[in-house]
Amino acid sequence: MAFLNVISLEEALKVIDSFPLKANVEKIGIENALGRMLAEDIKSPINVPPFDRATVDGYAVRSEDTWMAGESNPIRLRVIGEINAGDTPEITLKQGESAYISTGAPLPEGADAVIQFEDVDREGEEVIIYRPAYPGLGVMKAGTDIPRGKTLLKRGTRLTFKDTALLSAVGIAEVPVFRKPRVAVISTGNEVVLPGTELRYGQIYDINGRAIADAVRELGGEAVFLGIARDDRESLKALIERGIECCDVVILSGGASGGIRDLTSSIIEELGEVKVHGIAIQPGKPTIIGLIAGKPVFGLPGYPTSCLTNFTLLVAPLIRKLLGQEYTHTTVNKRLAHKVFSVKGRRQFLPVRIEGEKAVPILKGSGAVTSFVEADGFIEVPENVEILEENEEVKVILFG
Amino acid sequence: MAFLNVISLEEALKVIDSFPLKANVEKIGIENALGRMLAEDIKSPINVPPFDRATVDGYAVRSEDTWMAGESNPIRLRVIGEINAGDTPEITLKQGESAYISTGAPLPEGADAVIQFEDVDREGEEVIIYRPAYPGLGVMKAGTDIPRGKTLLKRGTRLTFKDTALLSAVGIAEVPVFRKPRVAVISTGNEVVLPGTELRYGQIYDINGRAIADAVRELGGEAVFLGIARDDRESLKALIERGIECCDVVILSGGASGGIRDLTSSIIEELGEVKVHGIAIQPGKPTIIGLIAGKPVFGLPGYPTSCLTNFTLLVAPLIRKLLGQEYTHTTVNKRLAHKVFSVKGRRQFLPVRIEGEKAVPILKGSGAVTSFVEADGFIEVPENVEILEENEEVKVILFG
Repeated sequence: MAFLNVISLEEALKVIDSFPLKANVEKIGIENALGRMLAEDIKSPINVPPFDRATVDGYAVRSEDTWMAGESNPIRLRVIGEINAGDTPEITLKQGESAYISTGAPLPEGADAVIQFEDVDREGEEVIIYRPAYPGLGVMKAGTDIPRGKTLLKRGTRLTFKDTALLSAVGIAEVPVFRKPRVAVISTGNEVVLPGTELRYGQIYDINGRAIADAVRELGGEAVFLGIARDDRESLKALIERGIECCDVVILSGGASGGIRDLTSSIIEELGEVKVHGIAIQPGKPTIIGLIAGKPVFGLPGYPTSCLTNFTLLVAPLIRKLLGQEYTHTTVNKRLAHKVFSVKGRRQFLPVRIEGEKAVPILKGSGAVTSFVEADGFIEVPENVEILEENEEVKVILFG
Repeated sequence: MAFLNVISLEEALKVIDSFPLKANVEKIGIENALGRMLAEDIKSPINVPPFDRATVDGYAVRSEDTWMAGESNPIRLRVIGEINAGDTPEITLKQGESAYISTGAPLPEGADAVIQFEDVDREGEEVIIYRPAYPGLGVMKAGTDIPRGKTLLKRGTRLTFKDTALLSAVGIAEVPVFRKPRVAVISTGNEVVLPGTELRYGQIYDINGRAIADAVRELGGEAVFLGIARDDRESLKALIERGIECCDVVILSGGASGGIRDLTSSIIEELGEVKVHGIAIQPGKPTIIGLIAGKPVFGLPGYPTSCLTNFTLLVAPLIRKLLGQEYTHTTVNKRLAHKVFSVKGRRQFLPVRIEGEKAVPILKGSGAVTSFVEADGFIEVPENVEILEENEEVKVILFG
């Protein structure tokens, strides 16, 4: 095993960042845009409302015609037509004229106010007005809600239902979003079988395949789970080649220690190049990273918590970058619930559960499935530190 | 308009709760389970690990054979075989015997400890041991991680990647989840057109259709947007009938005031029964709720913020119930950023934006698109209250 040229986590992240992958953009219909990442700033192509719009049912008037109106001095205007929502009004109001208008309808030429029908009386072809209307009464002016050209949404936004509704409001039927990076996921190990299969003595069910595939989906990527490679060169090579064909990124798990690690490394060397031979962190020392046909291949540790920790540290930032997000981790600051001991000379990551403002270390072995299930993320214990004290502020890196 | 028999919000929620709909369950493959709502408690059908498992590469031994071992008194054991991960060991260790074993492999009969290979020497068919091993050294006992029968996940859980990984770990390939309720969404209005269409003067783009459809999806339901009904009986009736055919729930928006409201009401009466003729809240007074062929039909107000507020108050709890969740709203307690005035005698809901611990009222008209886009939810101003003071504690009902 080539552990001689182990590099730091920061160096590994620089290597990954230098890989020739970039965020790709595609146009999709707004009906499929929920949850996708916007690839451009979106400006409104129109005014909302697009025209001066009645906000009540009533009578469109020239407000100056009503300024002398009073309870004891009602004003009579001739009603020359009716405008309903959706109509294109062909009416122009001249002095002394009005038109019946419904909520949402466009004001006719000449009108600058709408008096609601409850406040007037109607007599035949005339409407009787008892109070003056001011310009703008009962009217929402064109563009007051959203002026044309206003930036509505920023590049990188993960679209919520409010965002898609806003896009719909300004008439946008297609939006540019970042294409979902396709990630091939491969589990390895002679003892590993898929759920649904009966376990023979000595076998265990696959965990990492499902964990990584669904973590990729939660990040906004597309996962293609290719199944389990046996511990032989042909089986592993065939799946890696399929991954390189169908996807942008390939993730293997369980292939990071012992025999499988060597196999993976040698297959990558045959098909491309191993770029990282190991990382000076625990867990994660045997993690290997290669590049085949311009596509990264990650060989992550087999223990679920170790696998997920390394996925979070190394792969998640890349998936974020391919989705137009920052090339980084998601972190929160918490206080340590109790003292933890570490090994000096090792840069260690310990799983923690978040409880309110506390980070509670989970002190099971990395082999335990439950440690990652109970954990929300992990904290770093730097190389030169042996003890983190209770209540010390810690940065929790959240899984995924 | 039949506003005479307006009922309270609480009465309306009781009526909706009494509708003959219930959460349905379907079995789906674990590869599609991410984000779905679990319909049953899940217990582990197996022990994890399923067998006593080596946690290091080394030698499986009967620990009592090593108890006399010391640096100056090394013990020699005969190596009678090799067990790799995935093997079904056919070896039984007798006194004085050991077997080479790799990480993850099952312990052979007779063995109760694994000594890692770094701590021993090998000479031909013998392994030389310098220190005593205790029972359980280098071994993860069957069921120590997850004992058979342990409840892993509770009914109603929205499955995350950690949950699907846990299900995979115990070999579950299919899970019972609540079937996604299918919700038909219909917009109405002669002035309303779909994005992608060119606006004629007097027309506006649909907002509510997209907002409601995607809000349904965020809640975990399935939305079928049927398009826009014109303000005529045939167009509206045809879409309502299609909705009743394809879906469990039908939501109309914009049909809650004026002509469309009357039309909707009369069509529901023809095809089924109007159960709620109006609700004593603002916005939402003209909301109508009917039942056709056992399926609820909601006629929500047309203004986007009003529509979304009534969707949140009336429809979202039903969708939650159909997904096995509590029949309720999602709320958070905040403090009011500034004083707000309301109208005495009206039970009002005002949109607010959340900023840290503050709820900031959004004081645009309900006709403004941007008020719901900027809002995270709304607060209630009870009927007998005119003023809510700055810093008063308020319960924010979150949209969706």
